Amino acid sequence: MSVDPSATIEISAFRWVPPFAAGLVRDLRIRWALEEIGRDYSVRLLDAMNPRPEEYFAEQPFGQVPVYRDSEVQLFESGAILIHLGMGDERLLPADTSGRMRGIAWLIAALNSVEPMFFELIGIDIFNAGQDWTRERRPQVVESIRARLKLLADALGDREWLEERFTIGDLMMVSVLRNLRHTDLVAEQPNLAAYVARGELRPAFQRALAGQLSVFEEFQPEGEAA
Amino acid sequence: MSVDPSATIEISAFRWVPPFAAGLVRDLRIRWALEEIGRDYSVRLLDAMNPRPEEYFAEQPFGQVPVYRDSEVQLFESGAILIHLGMGDERLLPADTSGRMRGIAWLIAALNSVEPMFFELIGIDIFNAGQDWTRERRPQVVESIRARLKLLADALGDREWLEERFTIGDLMMVSVLRNLRHTDLVAEQPNLAAYVARGELRPAFQRALAGQLSVFEEFQPEGEAA
Repeated sequence: MSVDPSATIEISAFRWVPPFAAGLVRDLRIRWALEEIGRDYSVRLLDAMNPRPEEYFAEQPFGQVPVYRDSEVQLFESGAILIHLGMGDERLLPADTSGRMRGIAWLIAALNSVEPMFFELIGIDIFNAGQDWTRERRPQVVESIRARLKLLADALGDREWLEERFTIGDLMMVSVLRNLRHTDLVAEQPNLAAYVARGELRPAFQRALAGQLSVFEEFQPEGEAA
Repeated sequence: MSVDPSATIEISAFRWVPPFAAGLVRDLRIRWALEEIGRDYSVRLLDAMNPRPEEYFAEQPFGQVPVYRDSEVQLFESGAILIHLGMGDERLLPADTSGRMRGIAWLIAALNSVEPMFFELIGIDIFNAGQDWTRERRPQVVESIRARLKLLADALGDREWLEERFTIGDLMMVSVLRNLRHTDLVAEQPNLAAYVARGELRPAFQRALAGQLSVFEEFQPEGEAA
């Protein structure tokens, strides 16, 4: 367990979230990267169910988690935090320019060419479930996602990771694909499903997930499911 | 004019796009950065109105533009290309770790916390215009965008750029905000509107825009508006 209140690195996370979000909140991405490189970190907990404190917006313009700080930087956006960690450790990102930039390209692809379609589906399935408009729109969004995942599966082919080795590009892509866990869309592409499973089987991922979920258990409101 | 067929740097772009997309296609972001640092580049033109050639997917997994290559790297995703250029030139990104990572954080914020909401609005206003579901959904999306832009405007405050100086974070944020040009949403936040105007007034932006539009003019199909 690498959570240590006296650590130089501090991240923010939520005290508790409803079950649909447990195991998906974005501090998981940073916990995972830190576990990969064996860095201790402390966690500052925020209340997800109420507005963020006014002063938090100075650290995170949109009130999201996580924020990150170490002795050098204060950062927001999980993608930027992963790039920072990756530039400092070859286990997360190769040191040569080409290898480093290819890993970053996949990280950006996950955030801008893959995840936005999932935001729309999650808007339909979770945040606006049952509204009239979702009945007409959902099949269109599902078709767009299906086509995009097919291209991603083609790009992965029979390789283990998106480039020759595991990078923050894979860490981000696996994290993003996990947001479809309430659907069969990833399972429709067997090599992608195996890729996500490979990511989730990494000991660092397992430790990170346990770290996030243990907090939710500790702060679970009475009468709420874990 | 920095377009030079013999340049080491090559980007891909479209030969022609319909008016709603002209001046917004993502090669503009790379042209802009290259103009900021005075680097020559050549342009490989693709047909936007037909499927990409099969071999293009080996360079760009989703068939999008731009791809980028120089003597060191072959890259896709405009965000990754801007990070690559920024790491190589202090005019685009400070050399110190903190300043560099803050610029990257804003670039990622533009791509993952701001632009995805715009994708949904553009889906409604352009690609699915007139469909029944859009009447119920559009006001919800507009309200989400309005709230997000208010937070972005608060973060910008009365500063000229998002950090102390212009970085690829601003280049990306201005580029992303320009995708709302068919609405008044940016104009509702006067400091954001001024920020976009400041970006667009940079001579490098003007040269980049002229570069993209001149190609569309040259290849304008007969009977189509420019």
